[in-house]
Amino acid sequence: MSLAIRILGIDPGLNATGWGVIEQAGTRLSAIAWGVIKAPAKAPMAERLRHIHDAVEALIEAHAPAEAAVEDQFVSANAGSALKLGQARAAAVLAPARAGLPVAEYAPRLVKKSVVGTGAADKGQIAAMIAVLLPGTKAEADAADALAIAICHAHHRSARARLAS
Amino acid sequence: MSLAIRILGIDPGLNATGWGVIEQAGTRLSAIAWGVIKAPAKAPMAERLRHIHDAVEALIEAHAPAEAAVEDQFVSANAGSALKLGQARAAAVLAPARAGLPVAEYAPRLVKKSVVGTGAADKGQIAAMIAVLLPGTKAEADAADALAIAICHAHHRSARARLAS
Repeated sequence: MSLAIRILGIDPGLNATGWGVIEQAGTRLSAIAWGVIKAPAKAPMAERLRHIHDAVEALIEAHAPAEAAVEDQFVSANAGSALKLGQARAAAVLAPARAGLPVAEYAPRLVKKSVVGTGAADKGQIAAMIAVLLPGTKAEADAADALAIAICHAHHRSARARLAS
Repeated sequence: MSLAIRILGIDPGLNATGWGVIEQAGTRLSAIAWGVIKAPAKAPMAERLRHIHDAVEALIEAHAPAEAAVEDQFVSANAGSALKLGQARAAAVLAPARAGLPVAEYAPRLVKKSVVGTGAADKGQIAAMIAVLLPGTKAEADAADALAIAICHAHHRSARARLAS
């Protein structure tokens, strides 16, 4: 018997945080829900972070994922951008951590490779592959990235399970 | 009549987050409590962030500050360091934001100038001035920086109150 498990993928950003919940039952994956959290752009930073955190908290309550996954790094030449992304990432990741969910981290190239087959895929290729892998999803780019992160985790957690058995 | 108000200053860092609570009554400032939060260095990132968030949440419950203050930027040539600092900063700032406290942000140079008189002060000078401004505090460097941020906010919030009256 193979129990279904729900996985939350998160693609954090200060302006737009993509999210996607998929269900894995054996080798079958299906999309449960997905979307984009847009924090109020003019609000003070603390308020924007609270908005992101509370929105992720609410969708965990709504869709009850058992595990979460996020990209683990962002390669940027710009320290200012990295500081902003770091804050958005923490706001998003704290919600599953506080809810007791394990949070897995994957390198961006590994996420792309898991879904498209190459680590150098662009956002358009990811969105196109998501529509193939999860039929019926018409996710905008940020949500498609989050679904890709969830799929990457689904592949790696089942590979670990096979190794352990 | 001048009511006393408690201010929480936070100096975020992934390894060590300094914090300090001061009380402002008219022009008089006194230190209430201060310390350093050390997150478990070997734990996964999500756990370290949760540790920082929960520790700040606990000290807000213990010392009941009405306002919080944090440095608003970090100038670094290294995007990797900025990403880490951003995450620690968000974990620390989310606790007062979720508790409904206003969170003020000050540039590092302004914090130094408020306490030492020059924007180019080093950590040793800040700790020495904190011992003068808040007699009886023997705060280690990270906690002294947090107390300096709280003092900077005390000065600026009373200046704003004078301008508004």
